[in-house]
Amino acid sequence: MSKRRPSIGVFDSGFGGLTVLKALLEVIAGADFIYFGDTARLPYGSKSVDTVARYAVDSSHYLESHGAQLLVIACNTATALALDRITAATHVPVIGVVEPGADSAAAVSKNKRIVVIGTEATVSSQAYSKALAARGMQATEKACPLLVPLVEEGWVEHPVTKQVAGIYLGEAFQGEFEDADVLVLGCTHYPLLKPLLQSVAPAHVTIVDSAESTARAVARRMRALLPQVDDGEDERRAQARLKFFATDSVEKFQRLGQRFLGRSIEGVQHVDLKE
Amino acid sequence: MSKRRPSIGVFDSGFGGLTVLKALLEVIAGADFIYFGDTARLPYGSKSVDTVARYAVDSSHYLESHGAQLLVIACNTATALALDRITAATHVPVIGVVEPGADSAAAVSKNKRIVVIGTEATVSSQAYSKALAARGMQATEKACPLLVPLVEEGWVEHPVTKQVAGIYLGEAFQGEFEDADVLVLGCTHYPLLKPLLQSVAPAHVTIVDSAESTARAVARRMRALLPQVDDGEDERRAQARLKFFATDSVEKFQRLGQRFLGRSIEGVQHVDLKE
Repeated sequence: MSKRRPSIGVFDSGFGGLTVLKALLEVIAGADFIYFGDTARLPYGSKSVDTVARYAVDSSHYLESHGAQLLVIACNTATALALDRITAATHVPVIGVVEPGADSAAAVSKNKRIVVIGTEATVSSQAYSKALAARGMQATEKACPLLVPLVEEGWVEHPVTKQVAGIYLGEAFQGEFEDADVLVLGCTHYPLLKPLLQSVAPAHVTIVDSAESTARAVARRMRALLPQVDDGEDERRAQARLKFFATDSVEKFQRLGQRFLGRSIEGVQHVDLKE
Repeated sequence: MSKRRPSIGVFDSGFGGLTVLKALLEVIAGADFIYFGDTARLPYGSKSVDTVARYAVDSSHYLESHGAQLLVIACNTATALALDRITAATHVPVIGVVEPGADSAAAVSKNKRIVVIGTEATVSSQAYSKALAARGMQATEKACPLLVPLVEEGWVEHPVTKQVAGIYLGEAFQGEFEDADVLVLGCTHYPLLKPLLQSVAPAHVTIVDSAESTARAVARRMRALLPQVDDGEDERRAQARLKFFATDSVEKFQRLGQRFLGRSIEGVQHVDLKE
């Protein structure tokens, strides 16, 4: 009799969390992934703590009620503003993107000075600064509200995007952070800009992508929590199975989402959260 | 015994509709204005017809239940996608921004060729093209998704915004529309970019701002529908009274909103639409 396959819920306000799902697929085999994109209410990055927490708790409940045994909050804003409230409101383990990102940044930095870029809400929460301070690092955070719309416009290698990124990074890498040696991508849209950001950032800077570090943290946690994953892998189990739910247009989710996931997306189901 | 003051509901997804309220205040005296900004669910411009219609109907019901005798849909996306559904779902007269904008554009154009810029959703609906075709005009519509975030970043005179506007308008004013002589601002954020857009558009182009033409249409309609407005004006009635409701942060509404309204905003009330 086969054991139940592990089921991992991945939540984001929209499409950006698909970069985290992509990283998860690279390190975890044989699991079911249920992705929930709250596209009818995106973006979260410009909204208040209460609104973001309410939306994130709704969405997490949806994933839990659909069988998720572990929740990945693949949205920096939701993690930064509402991880505690999501954890309190659900009955399964919850992993956000901030702690894993801070771990990686602290491991990589030599001079303990770090620049974090993210949405307005993430930066206001100072979640990264606190997580990095707890690891002995000094951080400065810079809100970059134009980068998400530029990615969604598809201008990932556009001269305008380079100019905008140059302005934002110029304002971040200054004063005592002029020689910061790590740049943390504190928003799941930004991995699509990684080559452009690397070309704009000072030459000595290492870019840390929270998606990758989160995927490794989830793999570790999953092996501890869901030991069935450690069973011998037969072919049936090795293949990841994906389900997608979105609160706005299914067609748009399929079309835009594949840019973030790096593969085609099919069978997205529409969810109405009764607003 | 004094007659009841007329009460006008103004609805937008967020802050942009405040440019319409500003225009209304210039042409209508002695009325109560109730402004509703659905800031917890903005932007509408990237979302689907069904989602926008559902949000807009919710918000319109809220305004009607708070005494609005006339509804102004001060959001191009909501007008373009959902004016029919809003009109069907409410019991008071409803005026959107598309028809008045089309009237002004048709009145101004000499060669009957018109460029309309707006959000992705507004442009996809072709509401302006249809309204202009009914007036004997030929129109091309261009989605400019970066202009709203650029306005919200406060970059209304920034070289980057000029470059982005130049790219969008360059793509719109070409082929048979190279000599179009009217540019319709089909999004309520764009009036803040009017000087910049005028400098980027071909020299012979006249800019039509739907906010102004909508305000004039509302004034006309109000005199017909709410004849108490035509009573002699004493000092008490001449002063407009404003009430503001927002679904996300009240503090942010006050702070950002004044850029659009051109005066300070006080006493905003938070509304939870029970999502």
